Amino acid sequence: MTVLTDQYTPEREAIDDGLRAAVARLPYAASRIASYHFGWTDVAGKPADGSSGKALRPLLTLLAARAVADDWRPAVPAAVAVELVHNFSLVHDDIIDQDNLRRHRPTVWKVFGVTEAILVGDALHALAFEVLASSGDARAAAGSGLLATTVRALVEGQLADFYFEKRERVGIAECVAMAEAKTASLIGCATALGALFAGGTDHQVGALRDFGLRLGLAFQHIDDLLGIWGDPKITGKAVYSDLRSRKKTLPVTAALGSDLPEAAELAGFFTWVEPLDEAQLRRAAELVEVCGGRRSSMESAESLVTAAVASLDDAGLVPEAAAELGNLAVETVGRKW
Amino acid sequence: MTVLTDQYTPEREAIDDGLRAAVARLPYAASRIASYHFGWTDVAGKPADGSSGKALRPLLTLLAARAVADDWRPAVPAAVAVELVHNFSLVHDDIIDQDNLRRHRPTVWKVFGVTEAILVGDALHALAFEVLASSGDARAAAGSGLLATTVRALVEGQLADFYFEKRERVGIAECVAMAEAKTASLIGCATALGALFAGGTDHQVGALRDFGLRLGLAFQHIDDLLGIWGDPKITGKAVYSDLRSRKKTLPVTAALGSDLPEAAELAGFFTWVEPLDEAQLRRAAELVEVCGGRRSSMESAESLVTAAVASLDDAGLVPEAAAELGNLAVETVGRKW
Repeated sequence: MTVLTDQYTPEREAIDDGLRAAVARLPYAASRIASYHFGWTDVAGKPADGSSGKALRPLLTLLAARAVADDWRPAVPAAVAVELVHNFSLVHDDIIDQDNLRRHRPTVWKVFGVTEAILVGDALHALAFEVLASSGDARAAAGSGLLATTVRALVEGQLADFYFEKRERVGIAECVAMAEAKTASLIGCATALGALFAGGTDHQVGALRDFGLRLGLAFQHIDDLLGIWGDPKITGKAVYSDLRSRKKTLPVTAALGSDLPEAAELAGFFTWVEPLDEAQLRRAAELVEVCGGRRSSMESAESLVTAAVASLDDAGLVPEAAAELGNLAVETVGRKW
Repeated sequence: MTVLTDQYTPEREAIDDGLRAAVARLPYAASRIASYHFGWTDVAGKPADGSSGKALRPLLTLLAARAVADDWRPAVPAAVAVELVHNFSLVHDDIIDQDNLRRHRPTVWKVFGVTEAILVGDALHALAFEVLASSGDARAAAGSGLLATTVRALVEGQLADFYFEKRERVGIAECVAMAEAKTASLIGCATALGALFAGGTDHQVGALRDFGLRLGLAFQHIDDLLGIWGDPKITGKAVYSDLRSRKKTLPVTAALGSDLPEAAELAGFFTWVEPLDEAQLRRAAELVEVCGGRRSSMESAESLVTAAVASLDDAGLVPEAAAELGNLAVETVGRKW
């Protein structure tokens, strides 16, 4: 399958080169695990052609830089830092969620152990700040502050997400706040850093940050839909994975908040102590749809993308690059990956 | 018991205020756990007078600043960042080592869970960079780079430490390299950052970094001795804790490398699959001593402290502050805590 992000070959190569150079700073014990995580090597350390992920966030950083200054090169360190942060959080998140699969392959903790996953995640986290600092860019300090605040938000979102699983009721407003922290904040940071490293004005950095925040929340709505109805062959995750772990995702929370009698049946599955079997999972997915959760998330994603595109107006951006950001946002809503 | 670090009341208060202000940026779910870890609150969230640790690292940052410019105030954000990094690594390390006690109280993962400990550790890690960036100091970018490189070294040292436990043989040279990465790097970073934020020359920053690196390695030698012979009432750790977990610490590695026949008996305990009972632990400790491990670490610590003090010569430092750093180094070798 071709995704829009595939077309940016030079940008993707620069991101990949930057990531590989960063990971190469780690000693063998850690770099071997990080290389596996990024899909560059297999478990035995031999070169692999595994996908290193969609690289959506760093690509957004570079497109944001182009939107400001028609040049993405100065933003490469920022793009690499963002992708390192994203991946550190994936490695830790997979431990927490006890997820066995990531990008169609066993997760780091599953292959190497929990200790290794904690420590390699920590190393990637630090590496992000190291890449920013060693960029030699005068905006590195501001960028580092923005990235640090974002990581904190991201971690707080993950903590809220984890606590929500244990709670019987979660309101849609707090669920949206959690998704903003967990996902939108890093995407907003990705675009803001691109604008910053391209020398954007405060207004431009703010506009691109808003774009990213809105796109990021749309992205989470779609991710949550794919966590229920996505094709495991495409998403690389187990079918119904979010229902299996009783995650209070955006569509689920919207459905549970409906007045329909089916919402009570759905709530029953979320207080059920035993693991859900396949028939129950299918029924739970059906109930999310019947209670309007699927439609609600799809509509939210669409209106967020419209708002994201609108935030690029009047920011004095390079029109062609701004249009590409808009296209990328629109594609996000229709994505199957 | 009084330790030398107790006497720096204004410095300690500034560090404590800075830490509390940083942790207050976290939302309740995370700050409550961090406050427990720092000993400010009990499990229920009520104020506690638990010790927040020795605060040796941030105090070294402030003393290094005084040694350069006779003023420690500008280095407070750096001191706070160093202590946040130290504590993030403690929180993660306690998960990895499955340690139940820290500062005489149950560890974070034990009280709140592994997920919470991973995420709160991540939040403290990010907070360190946030504190540096929001200091508004022109040296924040350089400081951030130094801190990031140090965190990476620290994590790599922890990974090496973990792998050593699984290996039958570890040479003393690689054990020293591990201790340098795991402990000395952050103490060297603490003093270097103090010098940097006080506006020190490259030569002064280098001299204070060398001081910290040597002191840090001495510190680890002593810590390893206390991990075997320390009084649990004073150290807050279980007796023989490092022997129990079959850690290849510095004195143990030195002892295992001896030519004495007792070294083979000691090696037997380190390949023994079952947990060691009290009699075996006592015997193992005795063997470390017989094989010269205790003396070797004590002598190394002493010569490292001498070298640390010597690195402060000819750096154009404020004599009184440099002498205090020297005293602190000498006390480290004699410490019981």
